Amino acid sequence: MLSRRSLLAGPAAAALAAGADPAVAEAPATAKQAPGIYRYKIGTFELTALYDGIWYRPITDKFIHNAPFGEVEHALDVAFMPHDKLETPFTTLIVNTGKKLVLIDTGTGGQISPTAGMIGDNLAAAGISPPAVDQIVISHFHPDHINGIKDKDNALVFPNAEILVPAPEWAYWMDDAAMNAASAGLKLTFLNQRRIFSDIAKQVTRYEPGKEVSPGIVTLPAAGHTPGHTVFAIHSGDQSLMVLSDTAQHPAIFARHPDWQAAFDVDGREAVATRKKLFDRAAADRMLVTGYHFPFPACGHLVKTAGGYEHVPVPWQPTL
Amino acid sequence: MLSRRSLLAGPAAAALAAGADPAVAEAPATAKQAPGIYRYKIGTFELTALYDGIWYRPITDKFIHNAPFGEVEHALDVAFMPHDKLETPFTTLIVNTGKKLVLIDTGTGGQISPTAGMIGDNLAAAGISPPAVDQIVISHFHPDHINGIKDKDNALVFPNAEILVPAPEWAYWMDDAAMNAASAGLKLTFLNQRRIFSDIAKQVTRYEPGKEVSPGIVTLPAAGHTPGHTVFAIHSGDQSLMVLSDTAQHPAIFARHPDWQAAFDVDGREAVATRKKLFDRAAADRMLVTGYHFPFPACGHLVKTAGGYEHVPVPWQPTL
Repeated sequence: MLSRRSLLAGPAAAALAAGADPAVAEAPATAKQAPGIYRYKIGTFELTALYDGIWYRPITDKFIHNAPFGEVEHALDVAFMPHDKLETPFTTLIVNTGKKLVLIDTGTGGQISPTAGMIGDNLAAAGISPPAVDQIVISHFHPDHINGIKDKDNALVFPNAEILVPAPEWAYWMDDAAMNAASAGLKLTFLNQRRIFSDIAKQVTRYEPGKEVSPGIVTLPAAGHTPGHTVFAIHSGDQSLMVLSDTAQHPAIFARHPDWQAAFDVDGREAVATRKKLFDRAAADRMLVTGYHFPFPACGHLVKTAGGYEHVPVPWQPTL
Repeated sequence: MLSRRSLLAGPAAAALAAGADPAVAEAPATAKQAPGIYRYKIGTFELTALYDGIWYRPITDKFIHNAPFGEVEHALDVAFMPHDKLETPFTTLIVNTGKKLVLIDTGTGGQISPTAGMIGDNLAAAGISPPAVDQIVISHFHPDHINGIKDKDNALVFPNAEILVPAPEWAYWMDDAAMNAASAGLKLTFLNQRRIFSDIAKQVTRYEPGKEVSPGIVTLPAAGHTPGHTVFAIHSGDQSLMVLSDTAQHPAIFARHPDWQAAFDVDGREAVATRKKLFDRAAADRMLVTGYHFPFPACGHLVKTAGGYEHVPVPWQPTL
């Protein structure tokens, strides 16, 4: 019988060899989560869902503008979520078209929550080096989508990537008059956008939503959540995927309750109209969809129900 | 700017170096799925959900004994499943108690579906060597739970593991009179049990459901699906997990429709009674549960609904 020392590698085994408590070390723990990566194909494109992590975002009873908090609490209860924090996972997406590696949204850059900022580790686990990324396509300018463009020292994380951003999003957030008119909280968001983009403005390509930014990756305007919020249709062969960005945040709350207007929507009414339009189309066509704040790996379908929509995750495929 | 050859490793890069079509190879695909492993803790115990894969099990319109197939088709539709195959994922579980590595059920051994039999690869990805497994605890004797004890050449996959099986399960399936009275299809299942266990019978420990098989791992009788079908309560510190085994197969079908009796239940009525009893308790106590055929990583909670129960997966935690 082999000894545990020869069977289990890493720090725990080293601790054991060094004489750690044998009662603890008989079956050393790995003390490490598995990588948050998942692959699927759309035609010949190879997609990698890259998990950035999860933020338990503090919320108050004013979190939803247009529903009694009792209803919100019930929705949180059936989703096994606390009442004072919104479970907010982040899943970025690598699209390998065979010609280009395209990253859609960039995560939090480790600047929002201690339990997020993992796309660097997950890229490494996926065998992708940051300099190999050819294009970054941004859906909108909220910090959890753009902060990963730079590290904490303001250096570019993906040095060779062209950065493409929605033109109407740039116009809104770079407007000094709009910033000066904003609330103190929203002003911080404006300032964050400037921190990310001001010194690299010449390297940033502004695209008009509706344009194809890379062969097979079509951008579609989806304003409401923010004025330039954009979603993406990815096509290869006879398959396609709708990347819903923040059309809805967590589906257990916002797909089930599509009328709810959240504090983080710049225009709540427009956000709801956009959500219903896109979700109706996705449900009617039984389209494969992914959402940035859907539970990892975030890929699935939408079914229309009596009161809203239900997200049906794809089953985890063990092979590609 | 680094070249792609230096950035991307593996077969695709080798193909590129060998002069493969550059139009295809500019961004070589990895052509490989991510590992199917997920970790979580129960008190001081470190658990690893180990994915064995998925079987698209052929079904007929007689698949559910006690419901019109139209209702079954509707349930399959809203779960985005085909009508002629039941989506059947397999998630085995490693419990590291700090003293022992315990494997609960062993997967298909690659003997049931080409898209299952991955626990060897996933164990390797999890940093666990098969000889390090101290105990195998079996819930019941269906092939997808026991076949992984041996490889295709009948050799033990986990050479150092004590094998623990439910005594009533052994009594039922090793009874020659029961085998001789069985239908031709069920007889194959009896014969499979004999293939796995006959030559290692002396190494197999039979436990009475209700017994604690390892400190913190309590077995509980849950007959119906099979006569000796067993579930497990795992306790450490003030946390616990209920391992539901096959109390329900895919929750989109059998948690939502707990009254349905499936062709694979030995006693359909008893299976339904057991399911409702355990699910009522899990829902009332908001217990953390896992099910062998729940979608990977299979860990979550059950909520009682008007017609049955809904499975709410835990959010993927990026850290342990």
